[in-house]
Amino acid sequence: MSFPVVGMVGGGQLARMCAQAAIGLGVGFEVLALDADESAAQVVRSAFIGDHNKYEDLLAFARGCDVLTFDHEHVPTHHLDALVAEGILVRPGPAALINAQDKLEMRKTLSAAGIPCPAWREVASASDVAEFAQTCGWPVVLKTARGGYDGKGVLIVRDQVQAQELMAGSNGQWLAEQYVDFSCELAVQVARSPHGQAAVYPVVQTTQRDGVCREVIAPAPIDEDLALAAQAIALRIAQVIEVTGMLAVEMFLTDQGVLVNELAMRPHNSGHWSIDGAVTSQFEQHLRAVLDLPLGSTAAVAPYAVMVNVLGGDHPDVYKAYLHCMAHDPGLKIHMYGKAVRPGRKVGHVTVIGDDLDDLLERGRHAAAYLTGEITQ
Amino acid sequence: MSFPVVGMVGGGQLARMCAQAAIGLGVGFEVLALDADESAAQVVRSAFIGDHNKYEDLLAFARGCDVLTFDHEHVPTHHLDALVAEGILVRPGPAALINAQDKLEMRKTLSAAGIPCPAWREVASASDVAEFAQTCGWPVVLKTARGGYDGKGVLIVRDQVQAQELMAGSNGQWLAEQYVDFSCELAVQVARSPHGQAAVYPVVQTTQRDGVCREVIAPAPIDEDLALAAQAIALRIAQVIEVTGMLAVEMFLTDQGVLVNELAMRPHNSGHWSIDGAVTSQFEQHLRAVLDLPLGSTAAVAPYAVMVNVLGGDHPDVYKAYLHCMAHDPGLKIHMYGKAVRPGRKVGHVTVIGDDLDDLLERGRHAAAYLTGEITQ
Repeated sequence: MSFPVVGMVGGGQLARMCAQAAIGLGVGFEVLALDADESAAQVVRSAFIGDHNKYEDLLAFARGCDVLTFDHEHVPTHHLDALVAEGILVRPGPAALINAQDKLEMRKTLSAAGIPCPAWREVASASDVAEFAQTCGWPVVLKTARGGYDGKGVLIVRDQVQAQELMAGSNGQWLAEQYVDFSCELAVQVARSPHGQAAVYPVVQTTQRDGVCREVIAPAPIDEDLALAAQAIALRIAQVIEVTGMLAVEMFLTDQGVLVNELAMRPHNSGHWSIDGAVTSQFEQHLRAVLDLPLGSTAAVAPYAVMVNVLGGDHPDVYKAYLHCMAHDPGLKIHMYGKAVRPGRKVGHVTVIGDDLDDLLERGRHAAAYLTGEITQ
Repeated sequence: MSFPVVGMVGGGQLARMCAQAAIGLGVGFEVLALDADESAAQVVRSAFIGDHNKYEDLLAFARGCDVLTFDHEHVPTHHLDALVAEGILVRPGPAALINAQDKLEMRKTLSAAGIPCPAWREVASASDVAEFAQTCGWPVVLKTARGGYDGKGVLIVRDQVQAQELMAGSNGQWLAEQYVDFSCELAVQVARSPHGQAAVYPVVQTTQRDGVCREVIAPAPIDEDLALAAQAIALRIAQVIEVTGMLAVEMFLTDQGVLVNELAMRPHNSGHWSIDGAVTSQFEQHLRAVLDLPLGSTAAVAPYAVMVNVLGGDHPDVYKAYLHCMAHDPGLKIHMYGKAVRPGRKVGHVTVIGDDLDDLLERGRHAAAYLTGEITQ
């Protein structure tokens, strides 16, 4: 047996960080990217340039790999089904992945399995939304079943008129969800391999702004029983949907315990801390899981890790800021994605590990704000 | 300022592990490799295929990079001088690198600076060796000034007749060194940048077999004063020779303190533990140093790290052994270099971190022996 080749559809930073992990593992790693300048395409031997919406591109790419996996959820389900029929190992498989592609499918699956979710229902009209609001109250969270990420496709509506405006002219599916009053947001990473081995990471606390993840604390500074309950829910979801690879379960922490918000079936922003903060990073773990290799230890290497995203700002010179941050804090781990700076775009992240959470938060936030250009000293 | 590009001459595993670090840093990384299947050439966007002995190949490669550095010491000095004259940033520069290329130059430099070395002299004949032995006794360590690595070019001679046999017909330079009775071997990694910032790693203990590094313990289980003295010597050498990038100083620990054995001016086998065991790996640090970026923290992330090399053996199926080792020990970090197995060839390494040194040694040795094929359970 020779060392296998993983093919990842999508050339973003998740694929880039998987490429880094593949070098250590010694496994082959190929990327299907839209163009040669994408984040991951810059750092692999020879990216396959193609369109993940075209079946022929997917098939040609997959034929050069031992297993196919994903940096995003945008591959159409009927293409995935056709690839499986062709004998391609697709991991996660389409039946699992649908739960990360379609929020309505996800809610149906989780509710059927008794997983705690916010109250929800499928809605076809503003009057459906108003009817739903009679039980849960306004505002209502209105979501498109497909196509959302980083907060896109998620809307908070205060009344029937606003729901009417938003839904007018749409022919997609919608669901309405209870607006949850949460104390904080949590995420749990689980790896699961085809033969059913699962490994769960410490629960993390995430902070979003404008629907985009900004900051992660690992482990979440919450009660241990709550953390165990959150991990148990994530493991149960992994088993129910039979995911292969990494699963990220985003949750709300409420007075009544945790409620599942979203799922992702790939390495996820809430797990980036694991590169510097855990024995096995989520990127290495994803490769191990989709290759059906034994999973690695998810143990943390320090009492705390803090990860803060670097979003593109109006900064004139990121490299100069990068020099400054390195000089300012030799313990900082800066990760840059090779992406051109555009306002709000994720262009990198910083991680710091140690035992003093307040110190780590201050250092991580300072570096990210400096790199983004929000502060200049 | 945009992110710069480092060009590394040589496509071995050191360049491969630098490629991994470059992905995280977001800097460009190019490799000059002899062929496209070399370890590092497999994992960079597009390796430059050429010969490091040909000036035109070196120059063409260097013109596409912001700074030139090395995965080995085999580039002829006159080519390096010509590149510098051409305006290429060569780091480490030829005047420093000569001390890693030529053992006679190294001994002259270190002795002039008062650095503790084994007794030595240049020898041109077997009678010179015999004369040297009158002061130090037999056996004598006879070394070729150039061309040695992994124990090659280093010979232990018991008498004048044997020296005569070895030196006959050679037109290279030789030096004779005292055969040192050491209690263990140590190594110290230092990073130094062009503006003179230096950072030193914890002293490690190395174990060689047949002249090849087999095992590294970080930090070396030695007295703290001794460790500080060893670090001070390594820092002094970095300053004296004005190295840029990583410097590895190999030392003997003797009753009279430490004596310097060899120098390498690049990431070194004795520093591989730092990928998993330190905040900043020696590979990231080398890139930071040659780019004149501020250096990163050299702090360890665990009380101990153990690194054991995986040498090619007669093993029929390394991948199967790799699966076994991963299943056996989820905390193990296996690093494979993408190299075909040949007996004695370095094809990978394993690292384990933790607080129980005996446990780490047992796990690291077991995994390496299993991967090498020395044991089958």
